[in-house]
Amino acid sequence: MEIVDIDGIYCNGIKKEQGLGIVKCKGVVAGVFTKNKLRSASVEVCKEHVSDGYIEGLIVNSGTANAYTGENGINDAKEVCKLFSKLLNCNERDVAIASTGIIGRRIDVGWIKNNLPSVYKGIGNTKLHANRFANAITTTDRFPKKSYSNKIAISAVAKGAGMIAPNMSTMLCFIFTTAKFDSGELHEMLKSAVDNTFNMLTVDGDTSPNDTVLLISNQKDRVERDIFEAELEKVCYNIAKMIAKDGEGSTKVFEVEVTGAKSFKDAKIAAKSIASSLLVKTAIFGNDPNWGRIIAALGYSGALVKHELSLSFESKNECVKLIEKGKRLENEGEAKKFLERNNEFKIKIDLHLGDSHARAIGCDLTHDYVKLNSEYTS
Amino acid sequence: MEIVDIDGIYCNGIKKEQGLGIVKCKGVVAGVFTKNKLRSASVEVCKEHVSDGYIEGLIVNSGTANAYTGENGINDAKEVCKLFSKLLNCNERDVAIASTGIIGRRIDVGWIKNNLPSVYKGIGNTKLHANRFANAITTTDRFPKKSYSNKIAISAVAKGAGMIAPNMSTMLCFIFTTAKFDSGELHEMLKSAVDNTFNMLTVDGDTSPNDTVLLISNQKDRVERDIFEAELEKVCYNIAKMIAKDGEGSTKVFEVEVTGAKSFKDAKIAAKSIASSLLVKTAIFGNDPNWGRIIAALGYSGALVKHELSLSFESKNECVKLIEKGKRLENEGEAKKFLERNNEFKIKIDLHLGDSHARAIGCDLTHDYVKLNSEYTS
Repeated sequence: MEIVDIDGIYCNGIKKEQGLGIVKCKGVVAGVFTKNKLRSASVEVCKEHVSDGYIEGLIVNSGTANAYTGENGINDAKEVCKLFSKLLNCNERDVAIASTGIIGRRIDVGWIKNNLPSVYKGIGNTKLHANRFANAITTTDRFPKKSYSNKIAISAVAKGAGMIAPNMSTMLCFIFTTAKFDSGELHEMLKSAVDNTFNMLTVDGDTSPNDTVLLISNQKDRVERDIFEAELEKVCYNIAKMIAKDGEGSTKVFEVEVTGAKSFKDAKIAAKSIASSLLVKTAIFGNDPNWGRIIAALGYSGALVKHELSLSFESKNECVKLIEKGKRLENEGEAKKFLERNNEFKIKIDLHLGDSHARAIGCDLTHDYVKLNSEYTS
Repeated sequence: MEIVDIDGIYCNGIKKEQGLGIVKCKGVVAGVFTKNKLRSASVEVCKEHVSDGYIEGLIVNSGTANAYTGENGINDAKEVCKLFSKLLNCNERDVAIASTGIIGRRIDVGWIKNNLPSVYKGIGNTKLHANRFANAITTTDRFPKKSYSNKIAISAVAKGAGMIAPNMSTMLCFIFTTAKFDSGELHEMLKSAVDNTFNMLTVDGDTSPNDTVLLISNQKDRVERDIFEAELEKVCYNIAKMIAKDGEGSTKVFEVEVTGAKSFKDAKIAAKSIASSLLVKTAIFGNDPNWGRIIAALGYSGALVKHELSLSFESKNECVKLIEKGKRLENEGEAKKFLERNNEFKIKIDLHLGDSHARAIGCDLTHDYVKLNSEYTS
């Protein structure tokens, strides 16, 4: 299901020297934003507008982050919202905005002014329009990200590939639904979904000043809250995995699943610590079953851990156990072959200390990450 | 001043398929160890022995970390101490031990048993002996690390190149002095020096299970505490900088100096956050004055930061200001040339919010880091 399959959603986008994507989407809205203290002026303005709980449109520019641009940045973001609101014939505050790109550069308002009318004229609700929007908001992404629920009307489009860390990735994610909930309820459910998915994702440990996740509902259908929550989390989880897969230069994506932790907090920090370890990430790139680095990352995570833990690699079709209740099984040869065969797998750890569990998502660290990020121009 | 210039210090070492270094050093001792919860069995045993406040010798093996080796590891470490204590004719508990190398591998006690007698026979107090010891304890290091005070008798030898992070690096550092302090005083001063130097150093964010810093005094001289503290910190700081310079694959080393912070804690986390950011590290590798990434790292550090900050690059001979009280100065061209010219420099940030300051040490992230760590065999 494309986002434009949700009733009343129309969109379009262009990608030339910069990117511009727009969505016409009358509805109730909730947002979750970056925790970075020097957040983008676009985030400031979006937060303010979304706080009313209602929007009629969304405008996204890619190329400049509008971060660390001060008062000018605030004025620029407001101006862009105003330009779009005139076309939509609504209040300036009913437009949400997001920016992604280089920090310290202002939005090119002139360019948007010149291009917005024709992009708006071309707005529509076909797959082509959805693709144009998805493509327009990308930066270093190798592919646009989309996900939807198979059960109920939830559809999401996102961008993100680097500067990805708890809390939240340099990512923009826009989720559309028909489910009837008020803005407060949407916010509660979105916050929880983000905590369990995007906030457990790490590409490089850097948290961007621009992260924005919006959830927009046209209020057409009644859906049970339990079902909606579960489906929303699934959609966010899929997007998070796609971002890891597109992690700058990454060739492998892995989930870390920690079970048997004393507390949920322990499970979370243990899983995140492993998914974030550069030494684990480079080992995986090299198909090296260097479980010592996993053990080291567990040890410094801050979680309660004891020697008697179990560790295995698992994919859809196979499983290699490396440590069983503290005993090394000498399966490194098998594990190496496993890594060579699998580009998507789980690192499973049972701490045997309690009932709590959590998962994190990571990707390998490769030559291309260094290449991309040492050459991406400031 | 070599470590063997301290009265009563004799040492030797060999480096073949593995490394073995020994020091004869009767004296009062204090130690600071890794905070990793799955710490090496050698650390466990060393901590226990050092807790008596007195040692007669130190034995170090390189190649195997003796981490995650359970009860066997404890027995191996004790056995190695015993072997050395017999030669020194002292109690087994009066021998300190340290290991560095691959996690999950046991110490090759047989190999040590075979080689220790001849290494002990060759013990001496010349520069050659000091070099042999320094070289024996290295692993992926490109050079051994030594530092000493110009004012008083403090001399240190260390190893460390990767798995370097707050808190503490995968590093071993042995510091010898003639200054007369009791074990408790030595511990206090060592702890404080380590906090301000090694714990502010980050190569890759991974904390090893093996970090060990020992301070050993033969009690020959009276030294004022203030002077000793300052000199000890200088020595540790020099070693920390050498480790950053030798950071796996690194080509540039930089200090982050944060001033004008609201609190010391803020200054510390802000400095560390920048020094640890992969995006900052890759930008520096690429000679890219991408100050947006520095701003992003400040923003997510957790420290109180506001828009009106100042940012500059500084080396011994030159300074390029990038931001002055929140105003971008458009000196990126100059800054790029600065980075091309300088392999050792400071990133200076004034937050203009208070009087606290702190510094951190970092190095760039390069292709060689990925190469080294994806190929280092498990």
